[in-house]
Amino acid sequence: MRYAVLGTGIVGRTVAARLAALGHEVAVGTRDPEATLARTEPDHFGNVPFSEWLADHGQIRLESFADAAAWGEAVVNATQGAASLQTLEAAGAANLADKVLIDISNPLDFSQGVPPSLNPVNTDSLGEQLQRAFPEAKVVKTLNTMNCAIMMDPSLVAGEHNVFVSGDDDGAKKAVTELLVSIGWPQHAVLDLGGIETARGTEMLLPVWLRLYGAFGHSDFNFHIQVAGSSR
Amino acid sequence: MRYAVLGTGIVGRTVAARLAALGHEVAVGTRDPEATLARTEPDHFGNVPFSEWLADHGQIRLESFADAAAWGEAVVNATQGAASLQTLEAAGAANLADKVLIDISNPLDFSQGVPPSLNPVNTDSLGEQLQRAFPEAKVVKTLNTMNCAIMMDPSLVAGEHNVFVSGDDDGAKKAVTELLVSIGWPQHAVLDLGGIETARGTEMLLPVWLRLYGAFGHSDFNFHIQVAGSSR
Repeated sequence: MRYAVLGTGIVGRTVAARLAALGHEVAVGTRDPEATLARTEPDHFGNVPFSEWLADHGQIRLESFADAAAWGEAVVNATQGAASLQTLEAAGAANLADKVLIDISNPLDFSQGVPPSLNPVNTDSLGEQLQRAFPEAKVVKTLNTMNCAIMMDPSLVAGEHNVFVSGDDDGAKKAVTELLVSIGWPQHAVLDLGGIETARGTEMLLPVWLRLYGAFGHSDFNFHIQVAGSSR
Repeated sequence: MRYAVLGTGIVGRTVAARLAALGHEVAVGTRDPEATLARTEPDHFGNVPFSEWLADHGQIRLESFADAAAWGEAVVNATQGAASLQTLEAAGAANLADKVLIDISNPLDFSQGVPPSLNPVNTDSLGEQLQRAFPEAKVVKTLNTMNCAIMMDPSLVAGEHNVFVSGDDDGAKKAVTELLVSIGWPQHAVLDLGGIETARGTEMLLPVWLRLYGAFGHSDFNFHIQVAGSSR
């Protein structure tokens, strides 16, 4: 499968590397590939320059958002929530049409201070915004409720824990669930909440996630839905 | 300990019955005790009339909000979120002063359709609203992230699962944690998120809780935070 992963931050890199390791062809999308490759300083989270990371992942391509999306058979939105709509507009509606668009981002809003709040929230969600903006894409919201290391290696958290999927297209959710299983998520750990509207629920997990991060001092945890009468 | 439990619905009844069974003295608070006792029809959730329930719980008193709050050494807000501020105003600031106010409600807003949204949300919470409105009370937000049967009998959910506490007063949180342990919550299952501001996080769990309820068709589940490297 050819995956376009939009975003060159730690989330995009982690997803791209894992998909490539699983044998998929991967293009990372960025606004301006030359500018991305020209950076020689670590980013403000301390990650090595992208060019250095790319040199260690020779099978992965770097493309513009539009070229990556046009080439990919499925697209992963791994950009910051506040930039996601703009990024996908740059990718181009025609390049997203009829494709599964896996949205793993969260609409964090730092304008009200830290920890960030959400925008949109409550009566809308980023997942819904993307589906409305790109009605021909098959948006599946997933993986947005944990850190990116756990997303791509659920064995980092011992014991049962869950990943949610939300989307209006059942075929797309099935394909994403198969991808999640191939990444290492047990089938029973994948909880299908329903349509893309349910992305409101998973995006609104972020506020407690951020406060657990504060209380624990680390983000090596995940949500588990413990069901009565189940051993899981 | 003397507990005033404000609210005569299924949540208030379940909490009051459990506290009485643990040997506490309990008064349930309502707007108009005579009117509450005069009802002879089940409520719109199918619960038996309050008078019938009260006859089975002879040791529990029914009082006005103000009388219950004045009598209680601690107060539990088990009213609907939209009515909570008004209820506590009726209970009276002087009757709440220096007392632990355990807020187990959620600010569900049905004005935007179902499933309900939240109001306040995102940059405020009901827990914070109550603390601001009653600065001399020691508000502790807890238990609002599960159904009331599980609140009062965590053994209904096999395996590990959590209850959160949020509040600005450490002594009040300690007292509430001891109460939770006496109810059956293991000490390690009680997660202290920090100040009352963190109630935003737990109230914002409701949207995914409501959608899990929809997906499962029942509410017999709870959140569990699975921490990497922990057997819990």
